[in-house]
Amino acid sequence: MEEVSNIGRRRMLATTGGVVALAGLGSMARANAAGTAAAADAKPLPPYTDWKDADSVIVHSANTIETKRTAFGSGVVTPSDRLFVRNNLTPPSADIMKDPDGWKMEVSGVKKPRSFTVAELKTLGLNAVPMVLQCSGNGRAWFPHKPSGTQWTVGAAGCVIFTGVPVQAVLDAVGGMEDGMVYMTSTGGEEIPAGIDPTTVMVERSVPLSAIKDAILAWELNGEQLPLAHGGPLRIIVPGYTGVNSVKYIKHLAFTKEQSPAKIQQTSYRFSPVGTPGGPQHDSIWEMPPKSWINYPSDPDQTVKAGQVQISGVAMGGMSAATKIEVSLNGGKDWQAAQFVGPDLGPYAWREFVLSAKLAPGTHELASRTANEAGQTQPEERAENNRGYVNNGWRDHMVKVTVA
Amino acid sequence: MEEVSNIGRRRMLATTGGVVALAGLGSMARANAAGTAAAADAKPLPPYTDWKDADSVIVHSANTIETKRTAFGSGVVTPSDRLFVRNNLTPPSADIMKDPDGWKMEVSGVKKPRSFTVAELKTLGLNAVPMVLQCSGNGRAWFPHKPSGTQWTVGAAGCVIFTGVPVQAVLDAVGGMEDGMVYMTSTGGEEIPAGIDPTTVMVERSVPLSAIKDAILAWELNGEQLPLAHGGPLRIIVPGYTGVNSVKYIKHLAFTKEQSPAKIQQTSYRFSPVGTPGGPQHDSIWEMPPKSWINYPSDPDQTVKAGQVQISGVAMGGMSAATKIEVSLNGGKDWQAAQFVGPDLGPYAWREFVLSAKLAPGTHELASRTANEAGQTQPEERAENNRGYVNNGWRDHMVKVTVA
Repeated sequence: MEEVSNIGRRRMLATTGGVVALAGLGSMARANAAGTAAAADAKPLPPYTDWKDADSVIVHSANTIETKRTAFGSGVVTPSDRLFVRNNLTPPSADIMKDPDGWKMEVSGVKKPRSFTVAELKTLGLNAVPMVLQCSGNGRAWFPHKPSGTQWTVGAAGCVIFTGVPVQAVLDAVGGMEDGMVYMTSTGGEEIPAGIDPTTVMVERSVPLSAIKDAILAWELNGEQLPLAHGGPLRIIVPGYTGVNSVKYIKHLAFTKEQSPAKIQQTSYRFSPVGTPGGPQHDSIWEMPPKSWINYPSDPDQTVKAGQVQISGVAMGGMSAATKIEVSLNGGKDWQAAQFVGPDLGPYAWREFVLSAKLAPGTHELASRTANEAGQTQPEERAENNRGYVNNGWRDHMVKVTVA
Repeated sequence: MEEVSNIGRRRMLATTGGVVALAGLGSMARANAAGTAAAADAKPLPPYTDWKDADSVIVHSANTIETKRTAFGSGVVTPSDRLFVRNNLTPPSADIMKDPDGWKMEVSGVKKPRSFTVAELKTLGLNAVPMVLQCSGNGRAWFPHKPSGTQWTVGAAGCVIFTGVPVQAVLDAVGGMEDGMVYMTSTGGEEIPAGIDPTTVMVERSVPLSAIKDAILAWELNGEQLPLAHGGPLRIIVPGYTGVNSVKYIKHLAFTKEQSPAKIQQTSYRFSPVGTPGGPQHDSIWEMPPKSWINYPSDPDQTVKAGQVQISGVAMGGMSAATKIEVSLNGGKDWQAAQFVGPDLGPYAWREFVLSAKLAPGTHELASRTANEAGQTQPEERAENNRGYVNNGWRDHMVKVTVA
């Protein structure tokens, strides 16, 4: 791992001059190229996301839109109009939002199988769950073997508040699960193109039953109707798990003995060695590990004024609360405790952190690392894997700052 | 007080037929009239608020815009585009938002008086403060003596997250206060019309020094640049105090021995007996009392389906956390404990609450009451006062539901 890192660092040192202010390190040449392309040739927002703040996002494609690192704000909750978008398939027609309360979801693998409209689900229970929604591939841009997929840096993530009914309340209403079930399997309502084996494209994900505990079926995002772009009228939310497991436009909630036969479950979103395609024998991409990064300063177009600087960012614990946060001002040689500020929205949310530091003129490599309540720590290096999933290495997320 | 309430109740009973589904009780005839007027003759959003969600608000005037009771959502944090607006003066030109970091604020009454730009304030510290922002006159519509001022029901309030620098950090940077100071006095940057004694219109408010503890100078609202409509580029935020004390476009922060001579401090926003104009001898409207209300069901145009219903709303503690919440299904005769759900954003925020109840066909009077950590309780009756401030009586906030 150390070797990979050094390669990354050398590449960075070879491609940056003294006046480049700030940039993600690691595979920096690529990140810079992407940044330049975005600025010179920005793609327009696709129609179903035209309510997003265009200045705060990078449009990679019609189904992949990233939050700019400088656009997270410091209010802990990511504004909906800046939240990333990632759809595995073309979303359903906007017509499904005309009567969101009429959207239907089947429930099976339970004692009394039936379907529920959203209106009916709203009578069963209510909870609001703050959580980090993060694409499995967030941080992929820094993998040196250039995995296919969107080249996200930090912006395929946001901390948002979903409102809906606890899955457990739905289970209670149908008499509980049938005996012997092992997974909770959610099917998305996207239209499957004709003439294709559905399992090759359908969005259907299975998660362990332990995920039921805090899962909800959500119809609101940040206090407003859940928009189509984020899975409205109804989305299952599996806190602590990567985004793909929170299936959008959910039309079927099944408790099953086996994992879904869909390709997105069987071979995609698997943690396989570089060069080896994923398969059922590899770990599924489910729970998120702890991770943090600095958002300010991080603007490559801005020079920071010498003197006192409030270095700030976000730290998430994954499946348990982030409890520790440290910042390095010299590329990871020395570390000091930073402070969590702002509200604590619970174990699945991220915390805002800040370190007040005096920065002298020159260049500085700023990094952060976190640890969670369960004792997991954010590592220095990404965990290499074929498709570039769950990158949480602090070195990749480091920023280089020019202070004048 | 009981008599007033009964008058209100009788008026309500006299004006509602069996098919009216839902409405605030108390001075219900007036509330209904306002509702009808809003629907039939909705005013357009004034230009500086044209980014608001028109369907979620009631435009009373160019400077007073209310959140609809049905539009709070259940995500605890009120979306910025639904947040109420209340300006005491016409806001400054939108030009002041062209360079928000360049906005200047003087600091006086301190050891080393000086001015700070927002850019300079950003180097001093960072905190994110969730809090209920609530107009002093929220609930005024229910006062039977019809005080002048905007006839707000529940919607001149929202729970939002402001980000900025702690006032204490600014004080530390200027060597602390001069000796003998008693108040923190903030001056707004609105333009004062020519030929008028400034003290008659200027927005300048003094609060006790104890308010410094959690106060910030904010440049972000819910993670985005603080908009002009809400006091951008810079607003002082005094958590737990009514909105008028969180002065917008702050251009001067002074620590003073006396309260501001401005009319808005000396005679307005005073708790005086009905019929008696306010004056310095009356309590200033500062700290907020505990308060709660039901948001669902509350839509006068919607009939609720008989059976299980998730009755939900918000409860705030004022200066300390809301710790208890009860709901009555029969107009306050019997009470049962409701549940807080969703994240706890700290003592100045509100909590979402829910009671799962079975409602039979017919009409039901739904009420809620809360209590805070300090032991203050939400009373049955409003505290009568001349200008109709800080109404937190649960009877006024009750809703009448028709279930079929």
